Amino acid sequence: MVPSSELVARVQAGEPAAIARLISRAEQGAPEARDALTRIYKLAGLAEIIGITGVPGSGKSTLVAKLTEKLRANGVKVGVIAIDPSSPYSGGAILGDRIRMAELAGDPGVYIRSMATHGASGGLAHAALEAADILDVAGFGTIIVETVGVGQDEVEIVKASHTTVVVSAPGLGDEVQAIKAGILEIADIHVVSKCDRSDANRTVVELKQMLTLGSKAKDAKPPWQPPVIGTSAVSGDGFDALLEAIERHRATAAGGPLGRERRLAIAQFRLKKTAETMLLRRFADDFAQDGAALARRLTCRETDPYSVAAEFLEQTTFCESHGARHEPDGRSKIA
Amino acid sequence: MVPSSELVARVQAGEPAAIARLISRAEQGAPEARDALTRIYKLAGLAEIIGITGVPGSGKSTLVAKLTEKLRANGVKVGVIAIDPSSPYSGGAILGDRIRMAELAGDPGVYIRSMATHGASGGLAHAALEAADILDVAGFGTIIVETVGVGQDEVEIVKASHTTVVVSAPGLGDEVQAIKAGILEIADIHVVSKCDRSDANRTVVELKQMLTLGSKAKDAKPPWQPPVIGTSAVSGDGFDALLEAIERHRATAAGGPLGRERRLAIAQFRLKKTAETMLLRRFADDFAQDGAALARRLTCRETDPYSVAAEFLEQTTFCESHGARHEPDGRSKIA
Repeated sequence: MVPSSELVARVQAGEPAAIARLISRAEQGAPEARDALTRIYKLAGLAEIIGITGVPGSGKSTLVAKLTEKLRANGVKVGVIAIDPSSPYSGGAILGDRIRMAELAGDPGVYIRSMATHGASGGLAHAALEAADILDVAGFGTIIVETVGVGQDEVEIVKASHTTVVVSAPGLGDEVQAIKAGILEIADIHVVSKCDRSDANRTVVELKQMLTLGSKAKDAKPPWQPPVIGTSAVSGDGFDALLEAIERHRATAAGGPLGRERRLAIAQFRLKKTAETMLLRRFADDFAQDGAALARRLTCRETDPYSVAAEFLEQTTFCESHGARHEPDGRSKIA
Repeated sequence: MVPSSELVARVQAGEPAAIARLISRAEQGAPEARDALTRIYKLAGLAEIIGITGVPGSGKSTLVAKLTEKLRANGVKVGVIAIDPSSPYSGGAILGDRIRMAELAGDPGVYIRSMATHGASGGLAHAALEAADILDVAGFGTIIVETVGVGQDEVEIVKASHTTVVVSAPGLGDEVQAIKAGILEIADIHVVSKCDRSDANRTVVELKQMLTLGSKAKDAKPPWQPPVIGTSAVSGDGFDALLEAIERHRATAAGGPLGRERRLAIAQFRLKKTAETMLLRRFADDFAQDGAALARRLTCRETDPYSVAAEFLEQTTFCESHGARHEPDGRSKIA
C-alpha cells in the first residue's frame, strides 16, 4: 500500500489517481487512511465550497455543468462532488444524468467524483466533507457539492458549505413541491431553473413573496438577503448573475461575523459527524456479532427492544477509542 | 400526566386521543413513555404491516387511499403512518398531498398519522415502528407505512414491513428514474400506477424484463417472485389484483421460512435502531454541552476532526445506560 505521507504529497501535486484513491479510502472509512486524512485536514481550508441542492428534476446537474464552465472560463479549477442515490442492496451509486457532465471530464482543471448515499448513518456527510478537503488540497479553488434535496443527511451536507444554492423549477408536482418547502430555508441563493418556460415567472414571484413574508417577521435587517435568480440552460441566461451572487455572498461573509459563524457551524457539524461515524462504526461491529442472537429474543415478544438494547449497550463499551474493550465482567483487555 | 398503564389500556380500547398522545411521546423519544412502549411492544404483533414506497410523483398517496378504501370494504380496520419530508429548520412536517386522505379521516375504522423526517439519526425508523405497534395494539388489523423512496432511513422503514410495495409511474424524469432504480430491489410487489396513460405499458414491460434478468442469475427458484401490477386511480383498475397479491404474499410467508426470516430481519432492524437511537441521544446531549468549544479548535485547522472526536468520545461514556457517568479523571458518579 502507498504510505500516507506519499499519498498526501501526490494529492498536493494534483495527481488524479492519488485523489481518487484517497477519496475511496475516505468513503470506505478505512482506518489506515486516517493518518493521511488528518494531514489533509490541516492542509485544507483554502477552497470555496458551494453547495447545490434541489428537488428531483429541478435541473441541478445542468446547473452544475454550466457553473463549472463559467468558473473554468475564469481560470478557476473546479472539483465536483455529486452525491447520488444508491441501491440499499448493492451499495452502488446510480449515475443517472451524470452523463451530462461527461464533456467536462476531459478537462484536467475539472475533477468530478460521484459518491453513493449508502453506508453507515452519518458516514456519507463525513466522507463527502473529507472528499472536499482532498480536492481543496489538490488545488481546486472552487468545490461544488451537489445532492438531491431529500433526506436529512443529503440536506445537511449541502448546508455545510460556504454558499448554499437551492434550485427550484417551474411545473413540478405537489409532492415535489412539498419536498421543496423543506429545503428553501437553507438557501443563501435561490435559483429558478428552466426560466425559458412560460410558467417560470410564477415560480420566481412565489419565491420572492415567500422570502418577503419571512423577512418581515424579523426586526433587524439581516446581513444577507437571499436573492432569487432565474436561469435557463436553453438560452444561457442567468448564469453570470448566479456567479456574481455567489461572489457577493463570499465577499459579504469573508472576515465578517457571517463568515465566522458559518465556519464555526461547519466545523461543529464536521466534528459531530466524525464522532458519530466513529461511534456508529464501533457500534455496528459489535452489533454484527451479537445482533442476530439478541433479535431472536424479540420475535416472540417476551421482552422488548428497549430492554435488549440497553443490555447490549451495557455489555459493549465502544466508547473506548484506542482498542481497549471492557468485558462484561468489568475487566479490560487490549483488543 | 396520564400514567402509562392507563394510557396503554386506553390505546387497547382504541381511543384516538390516547393513540395520538402515545405516538407523540414515541416521536419525541420521551423517557417517561418507555414504560408504556415496552408494554405496547409485548402486546403487539398481530397486525399485518404493509410498506409502500416510490419515487416522488409516483402516486403513492392515491394508492394508499384506494387500498385503504378496499380494505375498509372488507371490514378491516386500517392504520396509516405517512412519513413526510420535513423542514430541517422548523422541524415541522410538510403535509403536501395528504389532503387526498382527508375524506377517509371521518371513518373511525381508519387512523391516519403523519410523521416528520426530522430528528436524530435513526430516530425516525424507531418512532415509526413504535407507532405501528401502537396502532396494532389499538386493534388496527392492517397498518400501511408510506414513505417517499429517497433517503436511507425512509427506505429502511418500508423494508421493515411484512409486505413491501414499490410504486413506479410512467413518464418521470431521468433523475427520478435513477432514484427508482435504488428502491426496486426491496419490492415484494411492484405497482405501476397511472396505467390509464399510453406510456404505462412500456414501464410495465421494462420492469418485467428487469425482474426476469435478475431471477435468471440465480439457480434455485425463489419462494416468492415479485409480481408487477398495473393500477389506475382514474378507472379503478388493478386495486383488487394488488390486494390479492398482498394476501398471496402474506399466505406464502406465514409460518414458512420466508416469514420467519422476514420477522427476524425486522426484529434485528428494530433492535439496531432502538440501540442506535439510545446511543445517539446520549451522544447528542453530551455534544450539545461541549461541541461548540471543541469545534472552535478545528476552525484554525491546527488539529483535525479525528483527534478531537476521539478525545470527545473518550471523555464521555454514554455507553453506561443507567445514569452512571465516568468522569474524565476515571472516577464514576451517579447522575
